[in-house]
Amino acid sequence: MKIYEAQAAPNPRRVRVFLAEKGIQVPYEQIDIGKAVNRQPEFRKINPLAGVPVLELDDGAHIAESVAICRYFEEIHPAPPLFGIGARERALVEMWQRRVELYLFIPIADSFRQRHEFFKGRIRQVPEYAEAQRQNAEERLAWLDAELANRRFIAGDQYSIADITAMVGIDFGRVSKIAIQPGQKNLARWHAEVSARPSAKA
Amino acid sequence: MKIYEAQAAPNPRRVRVFLAEKGIQVPYEQIDIGKAVNRQPEFRKINPLAGVPVLELDDGAHIAESVAICRYFEEIHPAPPLFGIGARERALVEMWQRRVELYLFIPIADSFRQRHEFFKGRIRQVPEYAEAQRQNAEERLAWLDAELANRRFIAGDQYSIADITAMVGIDFGRVSKIAIQPGQKNLARWHAEVSARPSAKA
Repeated sequence: MKIYEAQAAPNPRRVRVFLAEKGIQVPYEQIDIGKAVNRQPEFRKINPLAGVPVLELDDGAHIAESVAICRYFEEIHPAPPLFGIGARERALVEMWQRRVELYLFIPIADSFRQRHEFFKGRIRQVPEYAEAQRQNAEERLAWLDAELANRRFIAGDQYSIADITAMVGIDFGRVSKIAIQPGQKNLARWHAEVSARPSAKA
Repeated sequence: MKIYEAQAAPNPRRVRVFLAEKGIQVPYEQIDIGKAVNRQPEFRKINPLAGVPVLELDDGAHIAESVAICRYFEEIHPAPPLFGIGARERALVEMWQRRVELYLFIPIADSFRQRHEFFKGRIRQVPEYAEAQRQNAEERLAWLDAELANRRFIAGDQYSIADITAMVGIDFGRVSKIAIQPGQKNLARWHAEVSARPSAKA
């Protein structure tokens, strides 16, 4: 078993933090995304969509998509639970994981991808969309700050995969100058707490 | 228990098809998205992000996000399994559900949302991005056609939530003139099969 990843990219960090929380060690193989190694035919046999990370199982199966990789480890190594326990909590964690991914992490990523030199020629860039998503992301930070007024973590009283997605997304906002604002005290309190966990350095 | 939804929108259809496959009946309450009832303060108490569908549990909890609602029913009513069985298969289904959602369903939805009159004033529209996503969606249909050369369903030999997401997304492509092309025989074969299931009419 090994994981193909790229140290500086945000999605691989989600998996590294998740595994650190579980106390699981998996060998990593670095893919040079700066040289677009992930877009070459050899890597596309591993993931035709060219994304990292990808988990390679011992039987040769390849599991792409950060959340799918995390799900695999949740199943084989349930403690501590990071997707919730029981139908109700699992659904609520999934709701929050999706909310922070679709409406915060992805807008922050788009703010970078849709206008930065790095993605020129790699995707169809629309710089005007980068700006729209930057504004969307800032609105969602304000919304998330309000949501965090009455609970410790994104999905409730327990740290979960939703916290990982939100933390990694917000930290990646730095490259697009998207940041927690001075008045957003709840978000700042939450961010300080999740960032102080040893897993945040993974 | 009930589900707030809107009959004509694609995300609610994902949940209806899922529940039909499970043989579960849940009362529905229609929300008039044409009149933007979902964007008014009363509905935002149910889902601050204004999306439908939303599942309301008997204890008053609200679960938004189609896949989170489906996950809830998978947990309380596991048969037939639509998220896979066992760590490996569950991870592969999740990978495929995410691939068809992030790289096909969402581009198809963006092709509509980012330029159609319906979303004017509701979201920050960037028509140029609608066109980029239309082209992305067409490329992904070609890719998916190739993927389906050697297996019956999106995630393998079993029908899963990934088939539901892909079918609903592709059917919604009609409003943006995105469609399976004449040469895409594998995709056409798969689409005919999933569309013939009674659940497709839900």
